[in-house]
Amino acid sequence: MLDFSASYTDLYQLTMAQVYFKTKPKSVAVFDYYFRNNPFNGGYTIFAGLENILHILENLRFTKEDISFLKMHDFEADFLEYLTDFKFNGSIFSVKEGDVVFPNRPILQVTGNIMEVQIIETVLLNILNFQTLIATKASRIRHSAGARILIDMGLRRAHATGGYFATRAAAIGGFSSSSNVIAARDFDIAASGTMAHSFIQSYTNELQAFRDFAKTRPKNCVLLVDTYNTLKSGLPNAITVAKEMEKRGDKLLGVRLDSGDLAYLAKATRKLLDAEGLAYVKIVASNQLNEYVIKSLNEQNAPIDIFGVGTNLVTGKPDAALDGVYKLSEYNGKARIKLSENIIKISLPSKKQVYRMIDDHGMFYGADVVGLASEETISQMLHPFDSNKSLDLQNFTHEVLLKEVMTNGNRTIEKQTVAEIAKYAQTRLSLLPEEYKRFQNPHIYKIGLSEKLKNTRDRLVTEHKF
Amino acid sequence: MLDFSASYTDLYQLTMAQVYFKTKPKSVAVFDYYFRNNPFNGGYTIFAGLENILHILENLRFTKEDISFLKMHDFEADFLEYLTDFKFNGSIFSVKEGDVVFPNRPILQVTGNIMEVQIIETVLLNILNFQTLIATKASRIRHSAGARILIDMGLRRAHATGGYFATRAAAIGGFSSSSNVIAARDFDIAASGTMAHSFIQSYTNELQAFRDFAKTRPKNCVLLVDTYNTLKSGLPNAITVAKEMEKRGDKLLGVRLDSGDLAYLAKATRKLLDAEGLAYVKIVASNQLNEYVIKSLNEQNAPIDIFGVGTNLVTGKPDAALDGVYKLSEYNGKARIKLSENIIKISLPSKKQVYRMIDDHGMFYGADVVGLASEETISQMLHPFDSNKSLDLQNFTHEVLLKEVMTNGNRTIEKQTVAEIAKYAQTRLSLLPEEYKRFQNPHIYKIGLSEKLKNTRDRLVTEHKF
Repeated sequence: MLDFSASYTDLYQLTMAQVYFKTKPKSVAVFDYYFRNNPFNGGYTIFAGLENILHILENLRFTKEDISFLKMHDFEADFLEYLTDFKFNGSIFSVKEGDVVFPNRPILQVTGNIMEVQIIETVLLNILNFQTLIATKASRIRHSAGARILIDMGLRRAHATGGYFATRAAAIGGFSSSSNVIAARDFDIAASGTMAHSFIQSYTNELQAFRDFAKTRPKNCVLLVDTYNTLKSGLPNAITVAKEMEKRGDKLLGVRLDSGDLAYLAKATRKLLDAEGLAYVKIVASNQLNEYVIKSLNEQNAPIDIFGVGTNLVTGKPDAALDGVYKLSEYNGKARIKLSENIIKISLPSKKQVYRMIDDHGMFYGADVVGLASEETISQMLHPFDSNKSLDLQNFTHEVLLKEVMTNGNRTIEKQTVAEIAKYAQTRLSLLPEEYKRFQNPHIYKIGLSEKLKNTRDRLVTEHKF
Repeated sequence: MLDFSASYTDLYQLTMAQVYFKTKPKSVAVFDYYFRNNPFNGGYTIFAGLENILHILENLRFTKEDISFLKMHDFEADFLEYLTDFKFNGSIFSVKEGDVVFPNRPILQVTGNIMEVQIIETVLLNILNFQTLIATKASRIRHSAGARILIDMGLRRAHATGGYFATRAAAIGGFSSSSNVIAARDFDIAASGTMAHSFIQSYTNELQAFRDFAKTRPKNCVLLVDTYNTLKSGLPNAITVAKEMEKRGDKLLGVRLDSGDLAYLAKATRKLLDAEGLAYVKIVASNQLNEYVIKSLNEQNAPIDIFGVGTNLVTGKPDAALDGVYKLSEYNGKARIKLSENIIKISLPSKKQVYRMIDDHGMFYGADVVGLASEETISQMLHPFDSNKSLDLQNFTHEVLLKEVMTNGNRTIEKQTVAEIAKYAQTRLSLLPEEYKRFQNPHIYKIGLSEKLKNTRDRLVTEHKF
């Protein structure tokens, strides 16, 4: 599923690359990847997809089939010859995958030949935007669920093969396991699952269905109890089977509620199970769950041990997309800017570095500072637009966020497993104060500019003024 | 990108299959694919993805890697041996791809060995749900755009590789072309594209950028005019280049507006272009368009010739997913049902056929009838729940909607190109009266049951009553 050809791009990247090829084939460009808004009206974002991008870029080539196709689309022979030998040789500085990030500051910066950095734009945005969206969604659901188990069950409603990457991102954001076998296989994620209604329907009676299932799956048996009637049929039958399992020395792992009022049913289920001495049987709940429903279930003290989340997780509903962009910030060593009538959308020029301010307790202070990559020390951060606002940085320690991850087309960091990235995300989130994590009107994580960067930007804005 | 292994599934399909393997390996099951609601609060849905599913099912196998992975997940040796030789040998009846379809009646019906039909559930839902969602979205945008050109530009915001299938579905729903090169290559869709802001930023001045671009692309040149200032810089520079092109015997194809008030800017742009004798230069608009924005632009008489649509198209925003399900309706020749506390969610049992009623003018009459596949004639349709409502069918002609497309694992219909499917969708939509296509409170396309089907369902509901 990671077998991309370089034609995984927008046509205009190639159209533009051909013009570069004709007019300035040796030019060097710097592009920034960043987004403009935290998804889900939230206070933070979890960066995901970097490992995949490094792998894809190391292997990105145009196939013979690609070249034949492009031959029919107004591309010239010498440029197609260039594409035949295409390889990405650029360099990348990036925030670490799994880190907590915020809007309007570079997450990743690509430097290289202008044709190469242009052609990779689409795949880079495609992979990073989506996984960052889903990792953030997963992290919000994890925030609601506390220490409870979270299972990704979304593949059937995912955006076709995008579901493969959704599962990876969900694990990074804090999900415990997934129903998605191929993603579990490739990303070393725990695979899990229960049973479907069809299984029970294929039997004349529910009890026999449960019995057969329990026998084949003695160690890891979860019974779905709502096919006909949860409290009158499914649960009594599950209790019968649980007792039969006990006699064989096995233990029923859980029952799953997949419809109806989950708070009410979970309480009634817990009561019945406990009354039968089955306090160890877990309750799994599913059915259109999201961070808000789970929060509400917990506030009602619904005794649910495991949540299965599908559609809302893997589609990143309601946002559906992260608004990540890839903007030219430097060309042959010269700072470049993109203007906009909306002041917030004016891009930050030049090759940059991002610093995270740390407070006395080792927690994130609430501000990142962006400076020119060439600056050695930054003693003061300025508000991006309000010239009356500034902050002295002498009393803060800081972290450098953008680190080299690829040089001349070769990755320079060790491969990281999804489990390692997930753990890192969890550690980083623990450093973010609670007010940035709440769902309603979260605190805004500030951005400041170094004086030199602000001056560079303001000079370019003036130069392009009409 | 269509290279799926059979582990593209949910773990529980394999868990259940193992129980079937142990207890009833020769059983035959029938599953229905259908959805419960038209997406986007609309009055119809465009069915898409069938060609891909037929291809995937013909080639679905477990790889060595899959088997090794499953070995570590509680599966037994004899079942893994079965999976090693797994091949889908089932049969499928389906609505034709591109047809107009409606909720709660079978779109596709799969018959086969219970293990096989269970294992394919996930990939079938994954591919059909998503493409059906996007083809429907595209069709709505086409409805707003009338005869104007529509370009899919969504790959960078699509759900990772799901974007490949989004582009295919967009073409089926009525899009004219796509920026997505790899999808255009594989599905024979017209590829198109303009230029990005970065191209212009890489030059010291916009005019030179436009000149270089126009020279390399004399026949198909669209200039992006909003990098610095649309009316004061981009457009005057584009006019200069258009005139230079005329002198060389070329013609500027268009200018693209990508920010600001598109209605206002399009009118101002048209006026300026016309005043300069450039009435042939087209106006392309993009920036967070959807069916509602395009409708509004048209109502304002914005002189836009081409719309570029991205995020809202390829993510199916705001719905994000079609609620398609796959339910067991027959097991070893016996009718099966899934109950629900919500009467609408009770499934229709047995192997079925769907008939579309046609009125005197050859248009869709507004009702589909569902009967048992074994019924030869259906003279009356009954309301699914209200026993006072029925309709005599003697005066209607009808179409049979479910046709055989796969037998014993081999497709039985000719391969269809995306262009053919798109044309079919257009033809079928032209038979659907306008009141089903409007966005606000569209007419509801009715469903009726044959008496035999209704009796079968009611009998099963009674049998499972608590």
